[in-house]
Amino acid sequence: MTYLKKYIRDIPDFPEPGILFRDISPLLADSAAFDDVIDRMTERYQDASVDVLALVESRGFIFGAPLAHRLGKPFVLVRKPGKLPAAANSVEYTLEYGASILEMHQDAVSAGDRVLVVDDVLATGGTLAASARLVEMAGGVVAGIGVIIELTGLEGRRHLEGYDVFSLIEY
Amino acid sequence: MTYLKKYIRDIPDFPEPGILFRDISPLLADSAAFDDVIDRMTERYQDASVDVLALVESRGFIFGAPLAHRLGKPFVLVRKPGKLPAAANSVEYTLEYGASILEMHQDAVSAGDRVLVVDDVLATGGTLAASARLVEMAGGVVAGIGVIIELTGLEGRRHLEGYDVFSLIEY
Repeated sequence: MTYLKKYIRDIPDFPEPGILFRDISPLLADSAAFDDVIDRMTERYQDASVDVLALVESRGFIFGAPLAHRLGKPFVLVRKPGKLPAAANSVEYTLEYGASILEMHQDAVSAGDRVLVVDDVLATGGTLAASARLVEMAGGVVAGIGVIIELTGLEGRRHLEGYDVFSLIEY
Repeated sequence: MTYLKKYIRDIPDFPEPGILFRDISPLLADSAAFDDVIDRMTERYQDASVDVLALVESRGFIFGAPLAHRLGKPFVLVRKPGKLPAAANSVEYTLEYGASILEMHQDAVSAGDRVLVVDDVLATGGTLAASARLVEMAGGVVAGIGVIIELTGLEGRRHLEGYDVFSLIEY
């Protein structure tokens, strides 16, 4: 999917000096390219055994909600602290730049549900590993982890061993 | 669309004492109900003169991204401070509980673009008025404001006079 890279804009030193940020704004601004991304993600997962999607705040919502809509599957939210109104589990993790916490409603997933975790970028893998842990704490099974962009140099898959990880665009 | 209310869960005293939070989690957890919401929003706007959608962080992404995908339109993001990597305009506004800032990339909208602003809830109208202002600062024209839930008791439309405001579910 190399052609899609022309819709990703490189922004140096964001959000911290030394970090090269991959900005998806041009992709969202081109409906044919965005549709192609959703089409390809839909193809990848339409025959997969998935009961529910877990979308990671907040750019995971952008790709995950249309994907769930196309797959005809329900979805749950993995959110930053203080956003979820009902009883939630919480996982602390380290980011590429700093530490953070993610939460998911305790009743979001039923025991044994096969859950596809969706985010925009796989970087160090911390966010996705925390999201997978939240799925498992709620009794779910991680059916897969799907992202649009993978920053392979950060070796995020090392934090996601044992999971079926798919990315559309690699850097 | 009164039947959709059974997919909205009331959570008292969130995020502050005295606030009744309308939780959309059950709606997201029912793919037929979510599809119906996206179908109805698509019907509402499919013949509208709209060039681009502006999705308000972060629950606006959940409804706005599938809507843009269904309409075949591009979209831009209205985000909280520190999230957008390129040059952005900024608007400070007051919320139902506190004050906040929203930002949008300066190059997100072209002069004269007709922009549909999408969020999940219309409460006091502060967030949507700030989003409309960001569209106009970038040279766009607000073609409409579309939300899923309107809390009519908060009279948010008073902050949105002159705009074409549509909501699917009223409380």
